[in-house]
Amino acid sequence: MNCENFSISEKIVSSSYIRQGAQARRTHEQFIRLLLEKGKCPEDGWDESTIELFLNELALMDSNNFLGNCGVGEREGRVASSLVARRHYRLIHGIGRSGDIAAVQPKAAGSSLLNKLTNAVVLDILKAAGVRTVSSCFVVPMATGMSLTLCFLTLRHRRPKAKYILWPRIDQKSCFKSMITAGFEPVIVESLLEGDELRTDLQTVESKMKELGPENIVCVHSTTSCFAPRVPDRLEELAQMCAKYEIPHIVNNAYGVQSSKCMHLIQQGARVGRIDAFVQSLDKNFMVPVGGAIIAGFNESFIQEISRMYPGRASASPSLDVLITLLSLGTNGYKQLLKERKEMYTYLAEELKKLAEAHGERLLETSHNPISLAMSLGNLEKHNTKAVTQLGSMLFTRQVSGARVVPLGTEQTVSGYTFQGFMSHTNEYPCPYLNAASAIGITRQDVDLCIKRLDKCLKTFKREKGDQSDKLESESGNPATASKEDVSELAERFQEEACLGLKKL
Amino acid sequence: MNCENFSISEKIVSSSYIRQGAQARRTHEQFIRLLLEKGKCPEDGWDESTIELFLNELALMDSNNFLGNCGVGEREGRVASSLVARRHYRLIHGIGRSGDIAAVQPKAAGSSLLNKLTNAVVLDILKAAGVRTVSSCFVVPMATGMSLTLCFLTLRHRRPKAKYILWPRIDQKSCFKSMITAGFEPVIVESLLEGDELRTDLQTVESKMKELGPENIVCVHSTTSCFAPRVPDRLEELAQMCAKYEIPHIVNNAYGVQSSKCMHLIQQGARVGRIDAFVQSLDKNFMVPVGGAIIAGFNESFIQEISRMYPGRASASPSLDVLITLLSLGTNGYKQLLKERKEMYTYLAEELKKLAEAHGERLLETSHNPISLAMSLGNLEKHNTKAVTQLGSMLFTRQVSGARVVPLGTEQTVSGYTFQGFMSHTNEYPCPYLNAASAIGITRQDVDLCIKRLDKCLKTFKREKGDQSDKLESESGNPATASKEDVSELAERFQEEACLGLKKL
Amino acid sequence: MNCENFSISEKIVSSSYIRQGAQARRTHEQFIRLLLEKGKCPEDGWDESTIELFLNELALMDSNNFLGNCGVGEREGRVASSLVARRHYRLIHGIGRSGDIAAVQPKAAGSSLLNKLTNAVVLDILKAAGVRTVSSCFVVPMATGMSLTLCFLTLRHRRPKAKYILWPRIDQKSCFKSMITAGFEPVIVESLLEGDELRTDLQTVESKMKELGPENIVCVHSTTSCFAPRVPDRLEELAQMCAKYEIPHIVNNAYGVQSSKCMHLIQQGARVGRIDAFVQSLDKNFMVPVGGAIIAGFNESFIQEISRMYPGRASASPSLDVLITLLSLGTNGYKQLLKERKEMYTYLAEELKKLAEAHGERLLETSHNPISLAMSLGNLEKHNTKAVTQLGSMLFTRQVSGARVVPLGTEQTVSGYTFQGFMSHTNEYPCPYLNAASAIGITRQDVDLCIKRLDKCLKTFKREKGDQSDKLESESGNPATASKEDVSELAERFQEEACLGLKKL
Amino acid sequence: MNCENFSISEKIVSSSYIRQGAQARRTHEQFIRLLLEKGKCPEDGWDESTIELFLNELALMDSNNFLGNCGVGEREGRVASSLVARRHYRLIHGIGRSGDIAAVQPKAAGSSLLNKLTNAVVLDILKAAGVRTVSSCFVVPMATGMSLTLCFLTLRHRRPKAKYILWPRIDQKSCFKSMITAGFEPVIVESLLEGDELRTDLQTVESKMKELGPENIVCVHSTTSCFAPRVPDRLEELAQMCAKYEIPHIVNNAYGVQSSKCMHLIQQGARVGRIDAFVQSLDKNFMVPVGGAIIAGFNESFIQEISRMYPGRASASPSLDVLITLLSLGTNGYKQLLKERKEMYTYLAEELKKLAEAHGERLLETSHNPISLAMSLGNLEKHNTKAVTQLGSMLFTRQVSGARVVPLGTEQTVSGYTFQGFMSHTNEYPCPYLNAASAIGITRQDVDLCIKRLDKCLKTFKREKGDQSDKLESESGNPATASKEDVSELAERFQEEACLGLKKL
Repeated sequence: MNCENFSISEKIVSSSYIRQGAQARRTHEQFIRLLLEKGKCPEDGWDESTIELFLNELALMDSNNFLGNCGVGEREGRVASSLVARRHYRLIHGIGRSGDIAAVQPKAAGSSLLNKLTNAVVLDILKAAGVRTVSSCFVVPMATGMSLTLCFLTLRHRRPKAKYILWPRIDQKSCFKSMITAGFEPVIVESLLEGDELRTDLQTVESKMKELGPENIVCVHSTTSCFAPRVPDRLEELAQMCAKYEIPHIVNNAYGVQSSKCMHLIQQGARVGRIDAFVQSLDKNFMVPVGGAIIAGFNESFIQEISRMYPGRASASPSLDVLITLLSLGTNGYKQLLKERKEMYTYLAEELKKLAEAHGERLLETSHNPISLAMSLGNLEKHNTKAVTQLGSMLFTRQVSGARVVPLGTEQTVSGYTFQGFMSHTNEYPCPYLNAASAIGITRQDVDLCIKRLDKCLKTFKREKGDQSDKLESESGNPATASKEDVSELAERFQEEACLGLKKL
Repeated sequence: MNCENFSISEKIVSSSYIRQGAQARRTHEQFIRLLLEKGKCPEDGWDESTIELFLNELALMDSNNFLGNCGVGEREGRVASSLVARRHYRLIHGIGRSGDIAAVQPKAAGSSLLNKLTNAVVLDILKAAGVRTVSSCFVVPMATGMSLTLCFLTLRHRRPKAKYILWPRIDQKSCFKSMITAGFEPVIVESLLEGDELRTDLQTVESKMKELGPENIVCVHSTTSCFAPRVPDRLEELAQMCAKYEIPHIVNNAYGVQSSKCMHLIQQGARVGRIDAFVQSLDKNFMVPVGGAIIAGFNESFIQEISRMYPGRASASPSLDVLITLLSLGTNGYKQLLKERKEMYTYLAEELKKLAEAHGERLLETSHNPISLAMSLGNLEKHNTKAVTQLGSMLFTRQVSGARVVPLGTEQTVSGYTFQGFMSHTNEYPCPYLNAASAIGITRQDVDLCIKRLDKCLKTFKREKGDQSDKLESESGNPATASKEDVSELAERFQEEACLGLKKL
Repeated sequence: MNCENFSISEKIVSSSYIRQGAQARRTHEQFIRLLLEKGKCPEDGWDESTIELFLNELALMDSNNFLGNCGVGEREGRVASSLVARRHYRLIHGIGRSGDIAAVQPKAAGSSLLNKLTNAVVLDILKAAGVRTVSSCFVVPMATGMSLTLCFLTLRHRRPKAKYILWPRIDQKSCFKSMITAGFEPVIVESLLEGDELRTDLQTVESKMKELGPENIVCVHSTTSCFAPRVPDRLEELAQMCAKYEIPHIVNNAYGVQSSKCMHLIQQGARVGRIDAFVQSLDKNFMVPVGGAIIAGFNESFIQEISRMYPGRASASPSLDVLITLLSLGTNGYKQLLKERKEMYTYLAEELKKLAEAHGERLLETSHNPISLAMSLGNLEKHNTKAVTQLGSMLFTRQVSGARVVPLGTEQTVSGYTFQGFMSHTNEYPCPYLNAASAIGITRQDVDLCIKRLDKCLKTFKREKGDQSDKLESESGNPATASKEDVSELAERFQEEACLGLKKL
Repeated sequence: MNCENFSISEKIVSSSYIRQGAQARRTHEQFIRLLLEKGKCPEDGWDESTIELFLNELALMDSNNFLGNCGVGEREGRVASSLVARRHYRLIHGIGRSGDIAAVQPKAAGSSLLNKLTNAVVLDILKAAGVRTVSSCFVVPMATGMSLTLCFLTLRHRRPKAKYILWPRIDQKSCFKSMITAGFEPVIVESLLEGDELRTDLQTVESKMKELGPENIVCVHSTTSCFAPRVPDRLEELAQMCAKYEIPHIVNNAYGVQSSKCMHLIQQGARVGRIDAFVQSLDKNFMVPVGGAIIAGFNESFIQEISRMYPGRASASPSLDVLITLLSLGTNGYKQLLKERKEMYTYLAEELKKLAEAHGERLLETSHNPISLAMSLGNLEKHNTKAVTQLGSMLFTRQVSGARVVPLGTEQTVSGYTFQGFMSHTNEYPCPYLNAASAIGITRQDVDLCIKRLDKCLKTFKREKGDQSDKLESESGNPATASKEDVSELAERFQEEACLGLKKL
């Protein structure tokens, strides 16, 4: 309420109480003022009440919520379903204008503010996470892959003759498709095996630059975060080469914001060489729903050029999600999550190591990968050739999600290109393995349950049973005091009975 | 609750009541069953309680909501903010996989179902709206422009040599940029003036086809819905030409689903000639927030090819919005909205005509345009050269949104191409004018307020005042019984006083 | 946002857009201002966005939401569950203080405002609904019965010697128990049968007054809204008698606000005689959840005396519900609901009359009852003595709720008092009957379905089947286009199959 | 979804994913099953998704949510505002029937289940909190005071001749008014000063029993939780006396559930003597909004008698709140809160002791009071007679809520009875004092801020300024990194400036 309405209220409820209420309201306004003035993520997270107050205020500024508005355009932010209106806090106009995704909309001052502030807050967090000299960024409501495509399409206008993208191999489809979709020809550079690690083959990169001619190369497309035993690319050296040969350099930093190592690599690369843009996922780094990415860089005008490439308005939903999340966490809350992730990485590594040794396997030595770990499955495979893939489906059934088994010898064709040893980032890795990662938000319970279930599965194989129909042990005990683990197993059993029952009818 | 829990409940509350409750639950399940079985939009809209039940059920099937899940992947659908989780009904995994936006996700059976069902329901509605033979479509979380870009990028792989897009001019930036972003060269075909209307110059299109060579042309990029006095392109003839010369044909049907005429044009075009894909906005046709589009076509494999072009997962938010909206409206509710829109088009035309005549102007005759209308502003301009642009800002201030004034002689450069008479779709239209549209969701009150305010503004000019500081008349009356109109004016006045006051301090 | 924050925003998004946003916000503030200033229900309903803005503003004024608050009391408005906090809009402190349910709380300026405004708005609506001279009222979070008890307990302190309450019989348990709970002795006055109607026996009331002595009588406890064939009490005459003998008069107006007739009776009673308080249900009159009542009267100090009788704070939930509801409806919306109710009463009466005649029964003539109707079931009973109760359970199974069958000869003991012919308001009514009512919110579909189902049930008896296992006819047809009716029947059938199936396992 | 719908889904999304989804759903059903079967609070709290699933399921069982329902009654659970429907999870019918607040409603199987389960879960928690032999309880949507009134009114029917209630004095208005409202005459028994503590004068209680005659005494009305220096009544001895003289015994256990000591007293009293019912607040013990209480006892039939006294249905809102809260906390979560409260009590006592000594005061020795503490203000008063009340308002202004100052010599009349030394529970306590309590949900930050602000206020007096206009020190520092404390002070200052500014206009 404004001062006037507070004054009137003093006639209804005694002045001193109303004044205290007005003062309390003012405190919320102070937090909003700091955000507007500084354009930074608050150090401490906001209360939900402040966040919702702020979003409601923004919505009131959009023309679809004007009480006296009349609309005779083709796009008036009308909403048919109140469920939909509500879940978007009545912010309906999206972000950007047809010319530029970062532009301000006359019809939607609130949504425009939201867009500008989100980009400012996200920039602040990228700095705090380690890329101190980043100068510009924007949130785009597309996945990392499509965002990379947008970067490549922008480069086309700068380098009309170029058609190759130099790409140190990483076996993840959307990275690869981002280049294909943009209409370029990927030049795949295989990694070198150093110890257990797969690392960038710098020499081959440089020889390709010379061979193809820098003017024919759109850019180098490197990667930070990836599944072990591949490790982040040698960004410093790549950036220096790019500078030397005047080739643009786009970094896929998919889930690297959560790792100080990945962010450090980018910072260093930009300091000593050339990085034009780095792209990261919103969901993988900020614990929001899938669907957004951040395109960031060190040269404001290039980043703006990319934002002007997006034709048309865009969904505000990913921006809204990340803004809510960062306001509720604050810089301190986010840093705390990063710290816990790092600790869980160490814990997961230790536990996996113990488990591996108990089963005659080993934890691969991939210390350059700060997020993903790999445990060999060579012995398992020796016993039973199908065991590796069976282990994958057993873990799936047991609700261990994200633990990926990588058998040897998989061949796969993506957009017409055939990859040997697909999933392992190299034509022939020495052994099959299992990946597990310590990503932001992981808990000790996740690690413990994963290790426990993995252990159970591996033991099943040991007993030479090797089939999937392993019965659940009867130790599950008293349902009244059932743990998370027990209840899940119980449910599995009951489910089968109940639904089978019905099907018999 | 399942049957078992209903049985136990009978021990707590008497059986006959519980059984009736179980039966009632079953009714909701029946609606869900019909949706799953038929994959069609229900005829009558669902209750909010059924919709929310359904969404909650879907969410329970995603691994991030499994009570016994442990996650050790890099993307586990964790959410930091409960506000964010709640507004997405805990559906966090988005849609698609890295290989294909239409693919099923192992970790997210619920989100996968959501995606499939949304596409099925949307297909059903496209048929009901007039394109009876459409065979495939998918929702993509990008605006119309970026979705067109995706179509063009897909064609690149089919027609590697081609670099031109034939484009009957329409002055809307994102349409134009969709081609530029895709890296192609637009060949702009100016429209013909027929009466007041701007219509497709078929002869020039055909001569360009011959001149450039069909194999060098990526596609024809035509448009249905547009601002008067431009009218929808002659799709039948264009489609026939495309068939004859074997050139793909992509239709920008931005807000055309709401018009039976636009949909009829597409249906006819596909029947007699060639239409490869048509793209429409979600927000402009289905009253949902900005950010999604539907890519549809008559050849399932080509549409799939486009969906496989999108690298990476994508936001489920636009799919969720349109699914909620269509389930709550039902086919009948949606058709009712279309019917009301059509009626309001007629009403708006009549009222604008009267107003135009009262002010010495006329309603342009653009009967081929089923949504947008234009009223000349020639007399206004004669009195006062700046009046046309002033009128625009006066309408903005008075909360008339979407009424667009188009002065003569505007020149604008977009992505390096310069357009004469920008906004009017032609180098030199005979007179300046004002646009108003009857779009889905418009109400009689919108029309009445627009006419009333427009009339006031035009009268202001008549009185030779011509400035923006026109005072509000004192007739606003008793605030206790203030209408929507009055309150808005009151607010305007008070606002100025209050905030100016503060600034003086 | 306050003016300061709007000013800062102008540096981020262009001034004219922000100013328009600020102006739009101001409009919402204007509505709130009018409410605070006038304390009246707005004529037109508010938008949900204004309502939620207002509630959020109120919440910010309560100390549990102060960002800088520290609490060391025994009651600090802390909430353990965010689901709970959210559903109460973070208004946790309830209403009133230990001394008085209408008092202002120092810790909760917002909740106090809510309480005061709700009482003011409700008072305004009582006037608009017909009791123009009502001078004071308050919402109490107790059902009608307990609220009547509170009135009686208050009278005890004014009339310490009195122990009798004169009560024209109405067969509804909570009315009766309200007197018992208060510790008084009800003196039951049987009604007179006039035509089909049961009306107040004024002569007996007066003779009881004389017989017992006015000083020994706590009050007369009369009733307006009731099930036909009982009709509202003759309030004018009762009020005059109460005035004459100086006996207080409490009116149970349970669901009478929705009827202009009931409200007129109270207005007239107060004009010509004595009415001390009248009590009405919130849920039955304002379409809110069960649990609140309004205690109203013509003498402010007596109503205050009652409010001071409630020991302790109370739930704000019913006040919040009715305030949200009235703000969203506005006076006009509420009046429209009353108008529709009246129309549906006429429609229901016509349809029931036709149905009755078709089945050899008749609609009882009870024109003094403006809400409830009764249709005789004499013929039905002649055929089959158990048929009347069977009809009741058949209607229940068919989801006809609220249609009450009243067999003859039911005897029931309530709190030690035995009633002959219980449910029919009299010892022996001439025939069994069925009640149906046209209450606020009823729709034409409710009436049509009720008549249709009732007709089906009655036909079942005609065919001498008379058992409950009547099979559903096979006409239910195509599920894809199932109506509300069909789906319900389908569900019933499937339910039985599915759950029986499971039980067999 | 039911098994059938899961089966159909397998045709849309691959079977193994759907089956895993179905299994996951089953887990939620298992939790619900355990609740229904055992009727106990779960050990570990439920996820919000399980809670909401459960509430939605309950709502589907109420007739107002039946899709095929037609309603022709006077109370059909219709809701005008979707905001209201939503916040009650569409549970509209309230709890109980006109005859009994604990009865099952035919129209509302879901709400009836909710009511039964809430009472069962609450009973389980009362046992866990220390009253192991409690046999019956129910939640009533009225504050503690009105709930006590209901108990007294029930006793009237058992003891029609009795009119006195023996009441060891406690200065809290609603306790006192609960007896007055019920129409009885309180017999006030003053406490004895033992050390600093005020304790029950057992001798006087017994002599009053003899003097008035047991048959004339409705009950003894004792108290556990209270402000220091009063301490909980000697329940064991009172209960023994009640047994001996056959006088009912009602215990006001307002916020005693959170203290193992208070609960132990009740358990012991019931074991060795007579306790008929004990009444506790929902909000003060379970961190839910104000408005509900639990009436509990050791004799099921007496507790039922009370529940049957409540005439009419009642709000389900308090039941819903406490059920959501207990399901989300689980027994373990609730016990954890109790543990933390106890620790904070010790911490608060230590800090207050230090502060008191630093200012020449002392912490009163009231070890029998497990929740509330008192610090003398004798020295403060000597300096400045008005200082004690000034301190109160200074703390209020500084957002220290719940810290209550008690000056000497206050006289107050409540319902005609005059109390000397009101607020201090005795006619003349030796010194003025300040209360602070460690109640459930208190945090270390609450204690620290309270001590800090209290210290500042006391220092202000020391500096002989003694007025309220003390200026805020300038140390508040940089707003960008402002703490909770600083922001609050900043806000205070800005608020004054801003609103004063406006008023000058």
